[in-house]
Amino acid sequence: MILTDSLLDFFVETRKHSEDICSPLEIEDYVVQPIVDVSPPKWHLGHTTWFFEEFILRRHGKDYQVFNEDFSFVFNSYYETVGKRVVRSDRGNLSRPSVQKVYEYRSYVTDAIRRLFEENQDQELLAVLEIGIHHEKQHQELLLTDIKYILGNNPLLPNYSDRYDEYPVESHSEDWIAMEEGIYEIGHRSTDFCYDNELGHHKVYLHPYRISNKLATNHDFIDFIEADGYRRFDLWHAEGWDWVQQQGITSPLYWHQIEGEWHYYTLQGLTTVRSAAPVTHISYFEAFAFAQWKGCRLPTEFEWEAAQQYFNWGSRWEWTESAYLPYPNYRKADGALGEYNGKFMVNQKVLRGSSVATPIKHSRPTYRNFFQPNLRWQFTGLRLVQS
Amino acid sequence: MILTDSLLDFFVETRKHSEDICSPLEIEDYVVQPIVDVSPPKWHLGHTTWFFEEFILRRHGKDYQVFNEDFSFVFNSYYETVGKRVVRSDRGNLSRPSVQKVYEYRSYVTDAIRRLFEENQDQELLAVLEIGIHHEKQHQELLLTDIKYILGNNPLLPNYSDRYDEYPVESHSEDWIAMEEGIYEIGHRSTDFCYDNELGHHKVYLHPYRISNKLATNHDFIDFIEADGYRRFDLWHAEGWDWVQQQGITSPLYWHQIEGEWHYYTLQGLTTVRSAAPVTHISYFEAFAFAQWKGCRLPTEFEWEAAQQYFNWGSRWEWTESAYLPYPNYRKADGALGEYNGKFMVNQKVLRGSSVATPIKHSRPTYRNFFQPNLRWQFTGLRLVQS
Amino acid sequence: MILTDSLLDFFVETRKHSEDICSPLEIEDYVVQPIVDVSPPKWHLGHTTWFFEEFILRRHGKDYQVFNEDFSFVFNSYYETVGKRVVRSDRGNLSRPSVQKVYEYRSYVTDAIRRLFEENQDQELLAVLEIGIHHEKQHQELLLTDIKYILGNNPLLPNYSDRYDEYPVESHSEDWIAMEEGIYEIGHRSTDFCYDNELGHHKVYLHPYRISNKLATNHDFIDFIEADGYRRFDLWHAEGWDWVQQQGITSPLYWHQIEGEWHYYTLQGLTTVRSAAPVTHISYFEAFAFAQWKGCRLPTEFEWEAAQQYFNWGSRWEWTESAYLPYPNYRKADGALGEYNGKFMVNQKVLRGSSVATPIKHSRPTYRNFFQPNLRWQFTGLRLVQS
Amino acid sequence: MILTDSLLDFFVETRKHSEDICSPLEIEDYVVQPIVDVSPPKWHLGHTTWFFEEFILRRHGKDYQVFNEDFSFVFNSYYETVGKRVVRSDRGNLSRPSVQKVYEYRSYVTDAIRRLFEENQDQELLAVLEIGIHHEKQHQELLLTDIKYILGNNPLLPNYSDRYDEYPVESHSEDWIAMEEGIYEIGHRSTDFCYDNELGHHKVYLHPYRISNKLATNHDFIDFIEADGYRRFDLWHAEGWDWVQQQGITSPLYWHQIEGEWHYYTLQGLTTVRSAAPVTHISYFEAFAFAQWKGCRLPTEFEWEAAQQYFNWGSRWEWTESAYLPYPNYRKADGALGEYNGKFMVNQKVLRGSSVATPIKHSRPTYRNFFQPNLRWQFTGLRLVQS
Repeated sequence: MILTDSLLDFFVETRKHSEDICSPLEIEDYVVQPIVDVSPPKWHLGHTTWFFEEFILRRHGKDYQVFNEDFSFVFNSYYETVGKRVVRSDRGNLSRPSVQKVYEYRSYVTDAIRRLFEENQDQELLAVLEIGIHHEKQHQELLLTDIKYILGNNPLLPNYSDRYDEYPVESHSEDWIAMEEGIYEIGHRSTDFCYDNELGHHKVYLHPYRISNKLATNHDFIDFIEADGYRRFDLWHAEGWDWVQQQGITSPLYWHQIEGEWHYYTLQGLTTVRSAAPVTHISYFEAFAFAQWKGCRLPTEFEWEAAQQYFNWGSRWEWTESAYLPYPNYRKADGALGEYNGKFMVNQKVLRGSSVATPIKHSRPTYRNFFQPNLRWQFTGLRLVQS
Repeated sequence: MILTDSLLDFFVETRKHSEDICSPLEIEDYVVQPIVDVSPPKWHLGHTTWFFEEFILRRHGKDYQVFNEDFSFVFNSYYETVGKRVVRSDRGNLSRPSVQKVYEYRSYVTDAIRRLFEENQDQELLAVLEIGIHHEKQHQELLLTDIKYILGNNPLLPNYSDRYDEYPVESHSEDWIAMEEGIYEIGHRSTDFCYDNELGHHKVYLHPYRISNKLATNHDFIDFIEADGYRRFDLWHAEGWDWVQQQGITSPLYWHQIEGEWHYYTLQGLTTVRSAAPVTHISYFEAFAFAQWKGCRLPTEFEWEAAQQYFNWGSRWEWTESAYLPYPNYRKADGALGEYNGKFMVNQKVLRGSSVATPIKHSRPTYRNFFQPNLRWQFTGLRLVQS
Repeated sequence: MILTDSLLDFFVETRKHSEDICSPLEIEDYVVQPIVDVSPPKWHLGHTTWFFEEFILRRHGKDYQVFNEDFSFVFNSYYETVGKRVVRSDRGNLSRPSVQKVYEYRSYVTDAIRRLFEENQDQELLAVLEIGIHHEKQHQELLLTDIKYILGNNPLLPNYSDRYDEYPVESHSEDWIAMEEGIYEIGHRSTDFCYDNELGHHKVYLHPYRISNKLATNHDFIDFIEADGYRRFDLWHAEGWDWVQQQGITSPLYWHQIEGEWHYYTLQGLTTVRSAAPVTHISYFEAFAFAQWKGCRLPTEFEWEAAQQYFNWGSRWEWTESAYLPYPNYRKADGALGEYNGKFMVNQKVLRGSSVATPIKHSRPTYRNFFQPNLRWQFTGLRLVQS
Repeated sequence: MILTDSLLDFFVETRKHSEDICSPLEIEDYVVQPIVDVSPPKWHLGHTTWFFEEFILRRHGKDYQVFNEDFSFVFNSYYETVGKRVVRSDRGNLSRPSVQKVYEYRSYVTDAIRRLFEENQDQELLAVLEIGIHHEKQHQELLLTDIKYILGNNPLLPNYSDRYDEYPVESHSEDWIAMEEGIYEIGHRSTDFCYDNELGHHKVYLHPYRISNKLATNHDFIDFIEADGYRRFDLWHAEGWDWVQQQGITSPLYWHQIEGEWHYYTLQGLTTVRSAAPVTHISYFEAFAFAQWKGCRLPTEFEWEAAQQYFNWGSRWEWTESAYLPYPNYRKADGALGEYNGKFMVNQKVLRGSSVATPIKHSRPTYRNFFQPNLRWQFTGLRLVQS
């Protein structure tokens, strides 16, 4: 049973957090979209608002007046069920609605939701509200990584703020956790919130493996670079090798070699690479090639979930060897919310864990994140397995 | 001989005019670049400023301190001679420098130019200043048409301001001016300012032709549409036909058919098409096909120049049949300023006249504008010739 | 222990079979490459020959004279280890070497291999020979499907030969085989030949499922088409839906609707669709959408392997839900032969079974075929699972 | 008045010459299309035949039976008026009709034309026959240059035949012909055959210029290369410079530097560059940059035509500075034949003269050839002008 009061608190706190993330920005920073994978910050602010308007207020809000009919066209992301939308690659071409108008839209919808739930205790509707809150939290992580891309892609390499320590060092020494052969249980089981892709709690059979208690570090990765890792085709998937060649990849994203020393862009601007910190902003292709070079491999998502209790995680999303596929008995939700997860279950890789950019109350051992294998703008990292 | 005082007045007035054009904008409108041909308004403001800094202050400014070394990278347009530049398609990906910073840059450079010329009467340097002023005027026209594109491409179709009447009607009736066979003189001759591409005053031999004293109207163009002009391949160049097919072109740019009636986006928002006004926002391909359909043709730029004294012009840039080529004895300037015109003399068409967006003191009978034959976001139109 | 004599017989028979497949062709048919996935028949003939020359004769052939040094450049497919190669999309641009020269190359290498192995009993070398034979068999299937594409893409829709019945009907009625929950053993175990991707014999835990004893038919698929299956985005992956929209897909490959009736191109030319035969030439995206529409799903490759003994298979490669990934303990071979399988283990789907185009001695229950999810020119089909 | 007998002889001789050009080819060489600008030889053989069938036999042949209805789909080039066609980039994907079938098609149509004209003296029809003959002659030049591309693009660099001397030296010393200012007459005037684009005989006014009596040589061009001509952006058009950068152009087409010495592919295979021979296989962009580097320019087509009587020409098509535009009073023909020239009059450059590949009776002082400015596979060259 979902309690209205605490959920409304959670809602308000979540709404506020999105705006906190944007508070260091100039207005101009809200607007641009340097690559198709990144969305303009004002789009995130509008889209997470549109979600509440579309799935709750329009359908269940008594006498609710839509803020602006055109916004559903602008802020729909990929829900084909609910009408037309601005194609993803065009988001950065829209100067209007203005940032101020988007904030007005946010207040308007936040207030309407509060009013609606002050008198509505319907459990099904509360469940949609809960999804909407988690949906906004999910976008908070993208919001921050998109901001990093927008600023880190700018030749002026501006400072964002001093809030985040993106490169916390894991100070313990490396150890290999031995896991036994056998049947393990996988997937979400409690009554707490989770996404549909975590359901279908089920069993898998795992063969013996040893998993590192430590993420691969920048130091390790510099070794890989210096050992010509980006030039040895035998370490790469064919598709990964094409990507390296065509994009001219020679280091993780945001890295610049200046007078022989490795630097990277951080949310505080350009700085020298912190050698002991976990490597990040690497693609699956790079994670795989690195593991090959080490004579190891990446864990499957099942191996990760089975072992995660024995190590600390949370600063990097960790690439796994698993493709993003439905669990046995996976059922997608009816209607537009059914478009949330299932339709992406092809040609993507699962990431497990969470990252320095993940908002609080948005990580758990069964959470399945997923991206195409070439993407690098999230705080991605890797953990090795031996077998 | 160039007089310093009047040129400095002209300079200050020109600098102010660019900012006046932008005054109705939201900050967000300064940033975006929906298509590669359009530049963000803040880029125009910065680039016209960089031109004065690069070609005057850096080279001749005593003790001049460059405002920000990185700006030459950001605001160089295509001058290969003076270092690297942000590729054109990336201009809309830069949120920084902020709009406010660009305005500070403008003031800084404007002031430095004033100080420099208060004590400098060097004729050669004044000539560069004069080019810089005309360069900025040229960008003022682009600034306005780029703003129109940015707003007209937005699904909210916002109003810019009520300043411009884009669709002034030519109320006189159509007449055909008969021009005699013979030798005509072409090109700039006075000591007033002109661009290098107007020089090489020379003779051409023209055969008899009759040129309309009136631009083609929206009414005429609706007839063309209704006569299936966009579906009759025989009216088009092969390359034009490919463009029509691939882009799905069925009307001039900014036109929308709503419930059977033609509307277009103007700087005041969406409105019904003013039937008697000259058609605009058409490509050369469309101008040519329309002329074919009428059993006429477009004038060459020489025919236009020889006859222009007999009709009024100035509300539309007029497509000509002429390719943009050097005049006999054309000499390009030395150094970076030599990149101004000559290097574009291939695969472009000449336009003659000027438009509702042309700033004052920036039109003359010998002015040669030029664009690729598929472009439509300028206030382009057409005038027919019979022969 | 590999017996030389029987392996040599197998070798000779395999070499001959490739040429038999080509015997109905015109010389022109050997040369073209209408899409990048298809290779010209003469390229297959040359490449399978080059494999023996490169990996056996060049390295172990006493006094072996390479037939033509340039051929390794022309006929290498993707082995980065062994030097440069003609990029895949350029294979159809090469008129030379001529078809006759390629046949001479085949004879020359076949003879050299025979001579070498008449006196060589080295087990390691025999193992490479065995791989080469299976490699050629693998190309025989591609050879036939590439020929079908070359002819079926031609507006004249020519007949190839009457040898193949591509559409054998499964005449039994549909039944659902119930499989119990539990641990199953997966992968190759005998000493017979298999590819490295089948090794790493291991256990998986399966949950209960019911699998059809019959492939989906053309009749079923026409129902899907008529139920607007190609227009209902909710049935498709996001990536599949983009593919349908961009490619304008409305039916399986080779299907043409003529005067209201479905026809397809077969190796005997154009004919009406045989309604009761298993559907083929569909992508994974289509197989998935069809299963969604039926309220079923596709089997995983493990479910297929566990149940395959209870149904007949062999006329269609069957799409599974499984991504192509390494088995636990997968080890890729050293050197160039290590490039055979492992480097493709990303963004591909596993197919199980075999097809009407599979040569004899080239199918087994553990065989893992794999293709990108949008490809359709193989004899692909689907089998449903309920759970 | 056109005389039937001599025209029929010309017809037969022309038909035979196309086949003579192909006689050294392997069947495979007839089929491929390595770049979109090149057509497979069998396509040229079929298309020139289809022209006679479509424009003469189908319309005027009594009881004429079309050879194969599908051929008009396969062999139409760009005549939108006469139905669908295989898109240009797909010509190399068609293995059928076979080469033998195309030769049968040729005989069939050649015979039908002979029979038709043995009893038909209609002047209008004879005029179409004459166009058809010249059309085939025009394709003979393309046929030869396409063959050169097909073989020269092949890594085996095969010999075609010893028939052609592609590199005849102009042994006279360079001299500059001074041309006086004044009115010159341009265009075709006699009753002999010409294309519609040569008509509209008219006057032009030329300013004084001096034109070289000699084509630029390979020796000159090597000097340009060694003077870093391909690396000095100031010599190039902006569009030309992009082309050089994107395509990595560093020398004329077919040139290879081997151990410090320049070689090129010729129809006899690879050989060292003949230094004194006229340079060829250069684009307009290269011709322009070379002229800039020499402090000269290219002639306009009018300057070329006015002066051509004072120098020898005929081994190289000569790039001019003129864009391909209609002459005053140009009228395109009615119907499908009107598509012959007019629809290409945008974004192309005029070439004058003829080349070593031009068949006899296919060159005259008024002939206007035209290509996009980046194309190089014709035997193009350049002649300098000073002014």
